Amino acid sequence: MSGVFDHPWLSGLFGDPQAARIWSAEADLARMIAFEAAYSRALGAAGLVARDIAEAAAAAIEAADIDPAALAEGTARDGLPVPALVAQLEIAAGPAAEAVHRGTTSQDVIDSALALALRETSGLLSARLAELEQGLAGLERRFGARALMGRTRMQAALPITVADRIGAWAAPLADHRARLAALAPRVERLQFGGPVGLRDGFDGRGVAVADHLGRALGLAVAPQWQTRRDGLAEYAGLMSLITGSLGKIGQDVALMAQQAPREVSIAGAGGSSAMAHKQNPVLAELLVTLARFNATQLAGMHQALVHEQERSGAAWSLEWMILPPMARATARALGAGCDLCAAVTSLGAEG
Amino acid sequence: MSGVFDHPWLSGLFGDPQAARIWSAEADLARMIAFEAAYSRALGAAGLVARDIAEAAAAAIEAADIDPAALAEGTARDGLPVPALVAQLEIAAGPAAEAVHRGTTSQDVIDSALALALRETSGLLSARLAELEQGLAGLERRFGARALMGRTRMQAALPITVADRIGAWAAPLADHRARLAALAPRVERLQFGGPVGLRDGFDGRGVAVADHLGRALGLAVAPQWQTRRDGLAEYAGLMSLITGSLGKIGQDVALMAQQAPREVSIAGAGGSSAMAHKQNPVLAELLVTLARFNATQLAGMHQALVHEQERSGAAWSLEWMILPPMARATARALGAGCDLCAAVTSLGAEG
Amino acid sequence: MSGVFDHPWLSGLFGDPQAARIWSAEADLARMIAFEAAYSRALGAAGLVARDIAEAAAAAIEAADIDPAALAEGTARDGLPVPALVAQLEIAAGPAAEAVHRGTTSQDVIDSALALALRETSGLLSARLAELEQGLAGLERRFGARALMGRTRMQAALPITVADRIGAWAAPLADHRARLAALAPRVERLQFGGPVGLRDGFDGRGVAVADHLGRALGLAVAPQWQTRRDGLAEYAGLMSLITGSLGKIGQDVALMAQQAPREVSIAGAGGSSAMAHKQNPVLAELLVTLARFNATQLAGMHQALVHEQERSGAAWSLEWMILPPMARATARALGAGCDLCAAVTSLGAEG
Amino acid sequence: MSGVFDHPWLSGLFGDPQAARIWSAEADLARMIAFEAAYSRALGAAGLVARDIAEAAAAAIEAADIDPAALAEGTARDGLPVPALVAQLEIAAGPAAEAVHRGTTSQDVIDSALALALRETSGLLSARLAELEQGLAGLERRFGARALMGRTRMQAALPITVADRIGAWAAPLADHRARLAALAPRVERLQFGGPVGLRDGFDGRGVAVADHLGRALGLAVAPQWQTRRDGLAEYAGLMSLITGSLGKIGQDVALMAQQAPREVSIAGAGGSSAMAHKQNPVLAELLVTLARFNATQLAGMHQALVHEQERSGAAWSLEWMILPPMARATARALGAGCDLCAAVTSLGAEG
Repeated sequence: MSGVFDHPWLSGLFGDPQAARIWSAEADLARMIAFEAAYSRALGAAGLVARDIAEAAAAAIEAADIDPAALAEGTARDGLPVPALVAQLEIAAGPAAEAVHRGTTSQDVIDSALALALRETSGLLSARLAELEQGLAGLERRFGARALMGRTRMQAALPITVADRIGAWAAPLADHRARLAALAPRVERLQFGGPVGLRDGFDGRGVAVADHLGRALGLAVAPQWQTRRDGLAEYAGLMSLITGSLGKIGQDVALMAQQAPREVSIAGAGGSSAMAHKQNPVLAELLVTLARFNATQLAGMHQALVHEQERSGAAWSLEWMILPPMARATARALGAGCDLCAAVTSLGAEG
Repeated sequence: MSGVFDHPWLSGLFGDPQAARIWSAEADLARMIAFEAAYSRALGAAGLVARDIAEAAAAAIEAADIDPAALAEGTARDGLPVPALVAQLEIAAGPAAEAVHRGTTSQDVIDSALALALRETSGLLSARLAELEQGLAGLERRFGARALMGRTRMQAALPITVADRIGAWAAPLADHRARLAALAPRVERLQFGGPVGLRDGFDGRGVAVADHLGRALGLAVAPQWQTRRDGLAEYAGLMSLITGSLGKIGQDVALMAQQAPREVSIAGAGGSSAMAHKQNPVLAELLVTLARFNATQLAGMHQALVHEQERSGAAWSLEWMILPPMARATARALGAGCDLCAAVTSLGAEG
Repeated sequence: MSGVFDHPWLSGLFGDPQAARIWSAEADLARMIAFEAAYSRALGAAGLVARDIAEAAAAAIEAADIDPAALAEGTARDGLPVPALVAQLEIAAGPAAEAVHRGTTSQDVIDSALALALRETSGLLSARLAELEQGLAGLERRFGARALMGRTRMQAALPITVADRIGAWAAPLADHRARLAALAPRVERLQFGGPVGLRDGFDGRGVAVADHLGRALGLAVAPQWQTRRDGLAEYAGLMSLITGSLGKIGQDVALMAQQAPREVSIAGAGGSSAMAHKQNPVLAELLVTLARFNATQLAGMHQALVHEQERSGAAWSLEWMILPPMARATARALGAGCDLCAAVTSLGAEG
Repeated sequence: MSGVFDHPWLSGLFGDPQAARIWSAEADLARMIAFEAAYSRALGAAGLVARDIAEAAAAAIEAADIDPAALAEGTARDGLPVPALVAQLEIAAGPAAEAVHRGTTSQDVIDSALALALRETSGLLSARLAELEQGLAGLERRFGARALMGRTRMQAALPITVADRIGAWAAPLADHRARLAALAPRVERLQFGGPVGLRDGFDGRGVAVADHLGRALGLAVAPQWQTRRDGLAEYAGLMSLITGSLGKIGQDVALMAQQAPREVSIAGAGGSSAMAHKQNPVLAELLVTLARFNATQLAGMHQALVHEQERSGAAWSLEWMILPPMARATARALGAGCDLCAAVTSLGAEG
C-alpha cells in the first residue's frame, strides 16, 4: 500500500493526474536540466566562458539522454543525484564541458528546480481554488435558500440556511488564493549560492550570472536561501491551510450525510462490498483524510527549519520526503472538492 | 515539571515576563470583560437598549469583582467560562442586566479576547525581532570580518567570514516582521456572530453593533470567523517560522561552541553540577528546543482546522491547549536570542 | 489562556487534582530531594563516606528549606535547577557536605525523579483504566440489550446492540493496563551514570551505590539511560494510545448525541450562554480534544530521541516541555471518561 | 521528487529492495487474494458452502488475472479496491461465486492483508536489528579500546572510550527486538468482523470460519479490531523508536565526522558536485532524516485512533497514507545503519 499517490489502484482515490505530472521524476529531471542549460548560457552571457561554448554546452545538456540508473547509483553514494547528473552532462558536452556546472553546486540545482515545481503547483492550486469557489457558488444558487439546522458543539442549535453553511465553507478560499499570490515572491526564487552560499569565484560577475539565470528560468533573483527554509515551510503551511479548510467541508458533508433525514445526497457515492444499500460519502471522507495528512506532515517541514551551518544534508533531505506528498495531497483535495460539488444532487431540507 | 512557562524554577529557563503578562489568566479575564463592556455599549450605541442602561451595564461589568472559583465550576460544567461569567455580570449589572451579553455568545467573547491577546503578542514579537536584528548587527560589527570555516553536510567546506554566517541568520528576521504586519488584518479581527454565526436578532442593526464593538476594541470588523480558523493556524505557523529561524541560529552556535578551537565564547554560559570546567551553551540549546517544540505543536493547530458545523467544541478547545504555549515559546526564543547576542564575547577565529 | 491544566478556571475542564499533585513543582522537588538523600546514604552504605556523615547529610537534605527563587535563578543560568539545588543542600549539610551529590550529576537527579513521577502516574492511570472498565460494564448492564444502528463510513449500515458498541469501546482498555505493567520495568528505572554515564570514580563501588540507591527509591537498577530515551517515548506513546482509545469513545458519544432521535442522554451536559435549550456533550468533546492533543505531542517526544553524544541539552529539555502535559491530559481523559459513564442516563433506542 | 522510496533515483538513497517487495502493489494484491482464497475455503470447511464449490472458488481466486485498471476505477468510486476486486473474482469463480467473499467485508480483506504485511515487515526488521547489533559489536571489537572525548551539552566533558559510545548506541537494539516479538500477537491478528464487526450471519459458525481463516493465513484469531487501531499505532510507535535510536547513532557519527581531528572515517562517503575534497557522511545524515520523518508521521497514526462508530473511512484511509512509508523508512534506516557499520574504517582517536 506504499505511495498512495502513484499506486496502481489507490491512486484512483488519492491521485491527481496534473499533480502527478508536475511532481514526476521526469519533470524533476527536466527542471534540473533547465537549470543546468540556463546556467551554461548565463556563464556565457556574463562573459565567464565564450558564448559559443556556453551555447554548445547548453544545447548538449538539453539534448542529453540521461541514464536514470546512473543517477540512482550516484544518489546512493552522494546523497543526491547532481554529481552523477553533472558527470553525464560533462560527457555529453564534450569539449564544451568547461561551461557545465562550474561554480554552482548541487543545492543550486535542486532548490531552483524545486522553485520551478512550486510555481507550477501554485498555478494548479490557484486555478483549482477558483474552480472550487465556482462549484460552491453553484451549490449556493441551487440550494442556498433551503433550511438547515445550525449545529454547534454537536447539537442542534438554531435554524440557518444552506447558504449560511456554504458561505462559511467558501469564506477562506479567496484568502487562500491571495496567500498563494503573496507567497510567490518568497518561493519562486532562484537559488544560486555556489558551494557555501557566497556566489563568489566569478571574477565579480556572480550578480550577472544570477540575473541571467533568474531571467531565463522565470525566477526572482534574490539572495541565496540555502539555509533559510522559511519560504518552503510557509508554503507547506499554506497547503495545509487549504486542505484544512477543505477538511472542514468534508467533515460537514459527511455529517450531513448522516443526519436523518439526510441533508445531502451525492451521485455516485461509494459502494460497499457487503452492504448494497450504502452510499458512502467517499469524497467527503477523503477531504478529512487529506487535511489530517497535511497537518501531520507540516510538523516535519518545520522541524527541517533547524538547518545547521551552510548546508544540512539531514534537514534538506527531510524536505524531499515531505513536501512533494503535501503538494500531491493538496491538489487532490481541491480536485476532490470540485468533484464533490459536481456530484451533490441535494443539500438541506427538500421541499 | 508541568507547565514550564509558569513553573517556579523552570520558568527561569523557559519563562518570559512580558509574555507571561499577556497570557495570564488575569489578562484573559480583562480582555473578556473588555469585550462584554464594549458589547453593552455597542447595544446602546446601536439603539438596541437605552444608552444609559447600556452605560450602566458596561460600568458594572468593568467594576465587577469576578469570582474565579465560580468560573472554574462553570467551565467544568459548560466547557467554557462564559456562561458563569455572564451570570456574575448580570448580577453585577442588576437592573441593567438586559444590556449584558444579549445576542452575543461565548465564542464571540473568547475569540475576540484571543484576537486582543494576539495583537499584544504581535507587538511584543515584532519589537523583539527588531531587537534581535540589532543584536546580530552588533555582532557583525564586532566580529564580522573574522574568518570562519564554512561547513556543509557536517564537513568543513570552504572559508567564509563571520559576517556571512550572521547574514544567513539575520536574513529571515525582517521577513518575519513583514509577515507579522501582513497577518495582522487576518487575526486582529472582531469575532461577532451570535449563536450560530448569523449576527441576526438585532432588528437589522447587527452591522452597527459590530462596527461599534470593533471600534471600541480596536479590532477589524470582518465577517464572523467562528468556524474558519485559518488565521489562527497561519499565526501559529508564523510563530513556528520564527522559532525555526532562531533554532537554526541556536544549532549553529552550539556547533560553534563545540569546534576546537572554539568558534564562539559566551559569557555566563551554564555550569554543571559535576564538571566545573564546562560552559554549556544553554541559550543556544534552548533555541533548538523551542524550535522543535513549536514545530511539534503546529500540527495540532492544523488538525484543529477540521472544525465541524457551526462550532466545534473539540477543535476549538484544542486551540486553547496549543496556541498560548506556542506564543510563550516564541516570545522566549526571541528573548533568549537577544540575550545570546548580548552574551557573545567572541565569534570566529581570534587574532 | 496559558497552561490549561493549572489555569484558575480552565482547569475546571482540563485539570485533574490527582495528576496535578503528582506533577506539581513541590512534588518535583520532593522527588529530587528523595534522590539526593538516598544518594548520600548510598555513599555511606557503599563505604565511600563515613556512615554517620552520610546520614547527617541525608537528614540535612531532607530537612532543608529550599528557596525556589534561587532555583529559578540557577535554572536561568545553568539550564537546570540541580547545581543551585546542590549548592543549597551543601550549605544545609554543613560539615557533611562531602556526602552531598559527589560523583553523581544533574541528569541522574532529574531523570530518576522523573522515573518516580512516572511510577506514580502509572498507578493513577492503571486505577483509572480499571474504573473506566467498570463504568462501561455498568453501562452495558443497564443499556446493553438496546438496539443501535451500526454505522460505517458515516452511514447507517446494519443494526447492532448497545453492547456491541460498548464492547468495542472497552476492548483496548485491558490491553492498556497490560501495556502499563509491561512498560514499568523500562521506565521505573534508576538513572545513575555520573558526568558522562560511566558510573566510575567510586573506587569500583559504583555498582554498590547503584544498588543501594535503586532499592531506597524503589527503582530498578539498570544501566544508565541518559541518552537512550526509548522508554520515555514508549511511555508517551502508550499515553497517547490511551487517550486515542478514549477519543474514539468521545467521538462516538458526540455523534450519538447528534442523532435524531438522540442515542445518548447525559445528565448535567454543558449549557450555552446563548441557547438555553442546548445540552452540549462537553465531556465527550473533551475526550476528542485530549486525544488529538496527545497525538500531536507524541511527535515531539520522538523527535527528542535524536539525543546526541553523552547528553543533549536541547533534546532533554524538549521532554520537559512535552511529557508532563501528556501525563496530565491522559489522567484527565480517564477521569472524564469515568465521569461520562456516570453521567449517561440513556444509551441506544429507548423502549 | 515525489515518493522517495520508489523514485527512479532518490530510491538510491531512500529505497530498500526487501521493503519495496513487501510493500509493493503486487504483494498487496497477493495478500488480498490469499485472504479471499482462504476465506472461500473456510466457508467450505465450516460447512457453509459445499467443499468442492469452496475449493473451486479458492482455486479460481488464486488463478485470477486481476486488472489493475479496474481496481483503480473501483477505488475512485468506492474509496477502496475490494468491491471491484470481488467483482472480478466472482466472474473468475463463475458457478462457484457463491463461495466468494460472502459474509465478509472490505475491511476484513484489507486489514488482514495488512497484518500479513506487518508480519513480513517484523521479520525483516528483526533480522536487520540483529545484523546491526553484529555490526556494532564488530566496531567495538576493532575500535572499542580507543579514547574518545565524552561530550555533554555540546561541550567536551570527560574522556570515555569508543566502547562506551558504541555501548550506548547498541543498548536499545535488543529491547527493540523484544518489543517486536511482544507486539506480534497484537498486530499479526486476523481481522474478521463482517459488515459491522459482529461476525454474524454464519448460522452460528462464524467462530469456525475465523478459526479456519486464521490458521490458513497464519494470523492469530482474535476479536475483530476494525475500530480499535491501537495495535497499528503501537507498531508505528515501535518503528519510530527504532529509527529514533538510529537517528541518535547517525547524529553522533555526523558530529564525530566534524571534529578536528576527525573521530570517524567512512569509506565511500558522499562526494560533492562542487568540492572534490569533501567526504559527506551521507548515511549518518540519512539516519537523522529518517528518524525525524518517522517521528513526524507517528502523530498521524495516533490521530487516526479517533476512529468513529463501526468503521471510519477518513481515519482508516489516513493509515494507508502513513503506515507503509514508515515501514519503508524503518527498513531503510536499519539497512543504512548496517551499511554504515561496514563502511567505518576508523573510530575514535588513532594511534
